[in-house]
Amino acid sequence: MAKRQKRMVYSFGGGKAHGNAEMKNLLGGKGANLAEMAKLGVPVPPGFTLTTDVCTEFYGNNGKYPSGLKQDVEKTLKAVEKIMKMKFGDPDNPLLLSSRSGARQSMPGMMETVLNIGLTSKTIPGLIGKSGNERFVWDAYRRLMQMYSDVVMEKSAGIEPAEGKGIRHQLEGELNKMKKARGVESDVDLTADDLKELAVIYKKKIRQVLKKPFPDDPMEQLWGSIDAVFKSWNGKRAVSYRRIEGIPDEWGTAVNVQAMVFGNMGDNCATGVAFTRNPATGENKFYGEWLPNAQGEDVVAGIRTPNPLNEVTRTADARGLPSLEKAMPGVYRQLAGIRTLLEKHYKDMQDIEFTIQDGRLWMLQTRTGKRNGPAAVRMALEMLRSKLINAKTAVMRVSPDQLDELLHPTVNPQAEKKATLIAKGLPAGPGGATGQVVFTSEDAVKWAEKGSKVILVRDETNPEDVEGMRAAEGILTSRGGMTSHAALVARGWGKCCIVGAGTLDVDTKGRKFSGGGITVKEGDPITLNGTKGNIYSGELPMIVGTEENPAFTAFLKICDKIRRLKVRTNADTPEDAAKGLQFGAEGIGLLRTEHMFYGENCEKPLFQLRKMILSDTEAARRAALKDLYPYVKADIKKVLTAMAGKPVTIRLLDPPLHEFVPDGKGERAKLAKSLGITAKVLNARADALHEVNPMMGHRGVRLGITYPEVSEMQIRAILSAAAELIQNKIKTLPEIMIPVLCDVNELKHQAELVKKVHAEVCKEYNLRKITHMVGTMIEIPRAALLADKIAEIAEFFSFGTNDLTQMTYGFSRDDIGGFAPDYIEKGILPADPFQVLDQSGVGQLVQCGIERGRSTSPKLKVGICGEHGGEASSVKFCHNAGMDYVSCSPYRVPVARLAAAQAVVEEGTC
Amino acid sequence: MAKRQKRMVYSFGGGKAHGNAEMKNLLGGKGANLAEMAKLGVPVPPGFTLTTDVCTEFYGNNGKYPSGLKQDVEKTLKAVEKIMKMKFGDPDNPLLLSSRSGARQSMPGMMETVLNIGLTSKTIPGLIGKSGNERFVWDAYRRLMQMYSDVVMEKSAGIEPAEGKGIRHQLEGELNKMKKARGVESDVDLTADDLKELAVIYKKKIRQVLKKPFPDDPMEQLWGSIDAVFKSWNGKRAVSYRRIEGIPDEWGTAVNVQAMVFGNMGDNCATGVAFTRNPATGENKFYGEWLPNAQGEDVVAGIRTPNPLNEVTRTADARGLPSLEKAMPGVYRQLAGIRTLLEKHYKDMQDIEFTIQDGRLWMLQTRTGKRNGPAAVRMALEMLRSKLINAKTAVMRVSPDQLDELLHPTVNPQAEKKATLIAKGLPAGPGGATGQVVFTSEDAVKWAEKGSKVILVRDETNPEDVEGMRAAEGILTSRGGMTSHAALVARGWGKCCIVGAGTLDVDTKGRKFSGGGITVKEGDPITLNGTKGNIYSGELPMIVGTEENPAFTAFLKICDKIRRLKVRTNADTPEDAAKGLQFGAEGIGLLRTEHMFYGENCEKPLFQLRKMILSDTEAARRAALKDLYPYVKADIKKVLTAMAGKPVTIRLLDPPLHEFVPDGKGERAKLAKSLGITAKVLNARADALHEVNPMMGHRGVRLGITYPEVSEMQIRAILSAAAELIQNKIKTLPEIMIPVLCDVNELKHQAELVKKVHAEVCKEYNLRKITHMVGTMIEIPRAALLADKIAEIAEFFSFGTNDLTQMTYGFSRDDIGGFAPDYIEKGILPADPFQVLDQSGVGQLVQCGIERGRSTSPKLKVGICGEHGGEASSVKFCHNAGMDYVSCSPYRVPVARLAAAQAVVEEGTC
Repeated sequence: MAKRQKRMVYSFGGGKAHGNAEMKNLLGGKGANLAEMAKLGVPVPPGFTLTTDVCTEFYGNNGKYPSGLKQDVEKTLKAVEKIMKMKFGDPDNPLLLSSRSGARQSMPGMMETVLNIGLTSKTIPGLIGKSGNERFVWDAYRRLMQMYSDVVMEKSAGIEPAEGKGIRHQLEGELNKMKKARGVESDVDLTADDLKELAVIYKKKIRQVLKKPFPDDPMEQLWGSIDAVFKSWNGKRAVSYRRIEGIPDEWGTAVNVQAMVFGNMGDNCATGVAFTRNPATGENKFYGEWLPNAQGEDVVAGIRTPNPLNEVTRTADARGLPSLEKAMPGVYRQLAGIRTLLEKHYKDMQDIEFTIQDGRLWMLQTRTGKRNGPAAVRMALEMLRSKLINAKTAVMRVSPDQLDELLHPTVNPQAEKKATLIAKGLPAGPGGATGQVVFTSEDAVKWAEKGSKVILVRDETNPEDVEGMRAAEGILTSRGGMTSHAALVARGWGKCCIVGAGTLDVDTKGRKFSGGGITVKEGDPITLNGTKGNIYSGELPMIVGTEENPAFTAFLKICDKIRRLKVRTNADTPEDAAKGLQFGAEGIGLLRTEHMFYGENCEKPLFQLRKMILSDTEAARRAALKDLYPYVKADIKKVLTAMAGKPVTIRLLDPPLHEFVPDGKGERAKLAKSLGITAKVLNARADALHEVNPMMGHRGVRLGITYPEVSEMQIRAILSAAAELIQNKIKTLPEIMIPVLCDVNELKHQAELVKKVHAEVCKEYNLRKITHMVGTMIEIPRAALLADKIAEIAEFFSFGTNDLTQMTYGFSRDDIGGFAPDYIEKGILPADPFQVLDQSGVGQLVQCGIERGRSTSPKLKVGICGEHGGEASSVKFCHNAGMDYVSCSPYRVPVARLAAAQAVVEEGTC
Repeated sequence: MAKRQKRMVYSFGGGKAHGNAEMKNLLGGKGANLAEMAKLGVPVPPGFTLTTDVCTEFYGNNGKYPSGLKQDVEKTLKAVEKIMKMKFGDPDNPLLLSSRSGARQSMPGMMETVLNIGLTSKTIPGLIGKSGNERFVWDAYRRLMQMYSDVVMEKSAGIEPAEGKGIRHQLEGELNKMKKARGVESDVDLTADDLKELAVIYKKKIRQVLKKPFPDDPMEQLWGSIDAVFKSWNGKRAVSYRRIEGIPDEWGTAVNVQAMVFGNMGDNCATGVAFTRNPATGENKFYGEWLPNAQGEDVVAGIRTPNPLNEVTRTADARGLPSLEKAMPGVYRQLAGIRTLLEKHYKDMQDIEFTIQDGRLWMLQTRTGKRNGPAAVRMALEMLRSKLINAKTAVMRVSPDQLDELLHPTVNPQAEKKATLIAKGLPAGPGGATGQVVFTSEDAVKWAEKGSKVILVRDETNPEDVEGMRAAEGILTSRGGMTSHAALVARGWGKCCIVGAGTLDVDTKGRKFSGGGITVKEGDPITLNGTKGNIYSGELPMIVGTEENPAFTAFLKICDKIRRLKVRTNADTPEDAAKGLQFGAEGIGLLRTEHMFYGENCEKPLFQLRKMILSDTEAARRAALKDLYPYVKADIKKVLTAMAGKPVTIRLLDPPLHEFVPDGKGERAKLAKSLGITAKVLNARADALHEVNPMMGHRGVRLGITYPEVSEMQIRAILSAAAELIQNKIKTLPEIMIPVLCDVNELKHQAELVKKVHAEVCKEYNLRKITHMVGTMIEIPRAALLADKIAEIAEFFSFGTNDLTQMTYGFSRDDIGGFAPDYIEKGILPADPFQVLDQSGVGQLVQCGIERGRSTSPKLKVGICGEHGGEASSVKFCHNAGMDYVSCSPYRVPVARLAAAQAVVEEGTC
């Protein structure tokens, strides 16, 4: 019962507020910031917030509200009425309200909103009298009816109409019918009388379709709207968005009820959205869009192309459009002042919404603005330089995903010069993308599943398109601005996106679009330059990398000063090694010796390997190994040379041998001939290698135990390569790594071989010693459990979390397709454990392995070389678990450097 | 240096000894018992023991002895000389010595022995003078030369001659040449002069073959012999025996040097071995064999068929042979007295060796006698009844393997009546065996590896045959007695064995044997009745089980009184359930629902299952499941009925679906037709089910999550079957078990289904509730690690240690053939972890799972249902880990009952 006494309704407005910006978990981002703004003296329409606790209780209690909520709302409403000097439901001086969602983390467009609450047959005349604008009032009533019938009476009631049969579509149909009848093109051309007539038609239609009258009681409207917003937390779109963004279901949303202010009451009214800095570039200029005589939704929906906020950010596309700075200079100055106030207060870029009613500015919302990667890096650097924030805050200001964006492909500028431009649009998401054109979200998903790269082309996107946008390489819309749905979503994901390419004619039904005299059909390739906003015909070559971005380099240097975890790269070739070094790798954490049997120039060594595999005596194997040896040594020597002075971990042969045996009849026959055996004998030997579960079969150290001569050859190649570097006075630190270990005795066996070969190679090269280490992968659960024993021999551990995840879960990575999507969908697992390290299960084995290993050998060097080594949350886990380094593919090295720095900041020791 | 001060040489004899029976680890079994016997006043030839610590140091220090050993030996030798009133190397009154191995655990025939040490050109005349038996002395010298040249000069020196070219064979060749030249059949027919001449020939041959003279210095002979015995610890045979018996390499052997006494100095001399009770039946009668005028090796080697010890144990085969009781009544009485003394002292059946020299009895050895299973059970029961031992000792007296022997197959007596008897032999190993005849150890191993059941037929066996004996179903020899090598080894393993079938003519080279007018060729089937000693032509049917053995039942009742761990059985059918109950199972720990799709009468349900699997919509699956449901319900109902009143754990579908799809083209075509789809469509659907690593694929609960309707059908079948029992007033306790769990959310999902179906079934059968439990397999490492979470939902855990072992080691059970033998051979792993639970690794996860599960749910019921549940050391581990029950196949239930009782005794709380 103690819970009941907690405040459920938080008021704000009139320079006061119950809440503040710290209370995001309880009030949601929007509510907390409205409270904060009210306290700061920013002009905010008064209102109140129903907390996320109310949401939780609502869901936990079968849609029933906590007792006392009704009274609290009514009481707080009175305070709002007092500030606004108006009364909700009053026939003469009616207050109108809005009801909006507000979660802890912004979910743009994913939940519901109802505006103009409180318009009824009784209050309409009063508002007409007060505003003197009959058309505005009937239009507001039309909007209320459209929204309310859709959101409250249909969706929230759980009615699922057939595609295109929803009340929203039916009312829009009536609107279009009316426009056609009146011979007008736009809504704004309908008169007050038209709209009044439409209200009657709407009411009839609503009753007919939904079997219920449109409510004429203001309180019924208010509670219906509150209800619908709470319920929209579990709407299909919101749930799908949460899955993608990893937002927990149990957070819930708050509901903000606020006095309505109108940007569409006449020409002295306006509405707009703005960012305190440019969210696409990070440039420190006040950036935004506005529309005169409009409601907020008109700007965000992307239906009307909005005007630029000021002159300094005006783009070529906005030529001829009026800026707010010019149109309403006084209001603009006030707004610019608020911009400075808010950024100083919040010490971060803000995303704000405002409305101007009769020349008076109202701030509807401020929140930390979403930005893309390049913008995040630039802002962090500039705010650090201007001392608005310190280094540790700067490091936290760029998410690993944002940093990753900077590594996104860009269109090759040379190729771009000669390419055929179809059209230009707004550069909403940077980087380049190329792919085949599709016109629906469903097709984008389907084609992508089949492995095609697609560009999703739409007139405009809406929240139903989220899955398709996710699946696409890039997004192109013909309508909307930089704050349209498509732009916001794409920026959040760092996805290449061009919006508002108004010259394009998109024919979704006909599955084609045209522009610049070119017609592009479904499946045709196009290329987007999301940084410039250019759309090209055909597939252009891409460049990957940020070698030339000084901000990127500067930002990562800040990270390097903070982080303690070393970052290595996984590299099999000198090229990989060079790329890794360029991205800041401090060594190689995984060199797969088997790489040389794949890809280019592998023919000769592969033949020797196959010969070795298909030999049936140790003598024959040794002969084949002797021929293979020079290739292996040369290969390793190249990489050691590229990484001179840095540690290089070289893993002995890992895959089961049958992976190298050709399947094809022709190739087998050729091989048999070269080996001097019959095809039948070769087939028999190859078949004998077949395994039921190869992942858990005869591989890794198990090969080294049964065929010690194979390990021996590799060890000799490594130590001889190192010896040759030493003779050339090049420093080298090879680390010999034994894979697939499950018992210390396996390592003992292999370490003995290393000892023996080391002595032999030293003698051959006349050296006293060749500095090297011998260690092991920890990738089998038993190895983690018995790490104390293993550390008696191992000089280093490298966690192979790919295989460790496979065995800890009993998931074959090759076979999870049959159930993993269901597991994520049904919430059985929070994420794909092969992408994000499972800290609760696999993480226990990692921690156990480190603790036990260090209990025997306190200075044991420990790292990770699985794919997780480049995934930010996993890197942080590795830092916290006490690893010395992570190792990942070259392109993930920057993210690992950032995540390692953030881990230090997050532990609070920086 | 403190170590050096430890005694290295322990003397015994003359009624005194440094050591005692407790010191087996240091003195070996033989040495400890010689010391104990000496202290008991039993007449033991004096001598001394070099400790196992000396052996350890010998191996740890490159074959160098600890300093001071030489002096200690010389000093102690003086004491022996004093007791014997003879001097080692003395020309007039020479003392001869023996050097024998003695490990902590007996390894019969696996290490080396040298006798008659001290015979040289200087001492031979003295001994001839003293014994007055020139022939005996030259024969002793011949034996010394044969043994010493073989054991010390060849084997111990690491010389590996070609097959049949060893010095032993070459000297035997000379002996045979001499016999031929003299026209005699037997060694004993050679005269003193012949043997004297032979000594010259031997010396020449030895120098010629081994490039060294036979040593003529007694101390050189002594140290050579000590050396050879220590070295034989790492001989090929000994190592191979240790692998089979699980004896650690680091134990080492002691060496016993003892004054020689001679059973072959004349007709007043004899030698023999005896058991204080019959080791093959357990009967409380003094049982043994002896030979007049012979050395001990003559009895054990099985070359001469020995005489019975006494009249009461005389068998039909021994008709006409003299018993010691009759031949030397005084000595026999003394021996019988010592028998009583030793059994009272050691409180266990003793295996003794004795020699009679000139009518004087010397006890050479006493040790706990090996016995077969039936004998072990009978002795334990009878010693308990006579209060020689208490119940907890009785329970420890039968090893799980011995108990298992009682469950060995026996020949069907009806079939036996009509079978063709080839011959009769000595019943050395009980039970029946049938198989194809092979004539060499190598063939036995090869044929068995290919899956054949073989009977190894030999004239006599020797330690080189151990591997083949292991591989064979049964062993048959034409020579040797109940204490011959074949008999001892077979009894130790509980293997069916017949020895001394003297009427058989075994032609090893010709690969055939004949007897009773029948010739049996390699590959022909024969049948042995090892309990009776009968050899039959052809393959006779076997009966398994000990239903009729009251000692077995009585013994297990004693176990049941002591044990706390419950024992259940794994059973898929009413027949299995009945068998389990008969063996004492207290419930079913694992009923595999998929069993009904294998084996007899599975055609109809299998068709429905395949239909379900190859359906492509939920609706089609549900239709097939509806048709499958009655089969599943009927099946479960039968087993629940058979186990009325006892808990039955029913596991939901476990294998991946593709296991049920037929491979054959014809069968697929048939199935496609029945399903109304084309073969192409069927093939496509079947191919889509293929998995790279099926063990870690779409199986178990993963099927239940993706196809909840499959789980639902099974749950409904279980609860409906239970409901029908309840309606018939039959008590039933179904436990629904979810397999392959890796996360609590999977269990939540399935438990919800159970809840829903339970409500529906209750309604259908008009019951208030159907008592049941919902639990899970813990067989995935992650489930063990997150057991605390899982126990929030699970009402019981059942450890599936087969899969848990697979994933903890990363060993695919189907694929370990490629490396596991090497792993065992090279000592990387101590045992096959699928047979013996790996307590150090897998055991950690089991303990973790139990502890964490109980931390959430203190009364959580915990069991095991893997193959380990019937393996004794694993059962003991389960007891110690705090499990409530183990479950195993019906035939392993008795072993589990015994092991569970032994676990209680071993923890000392009984």
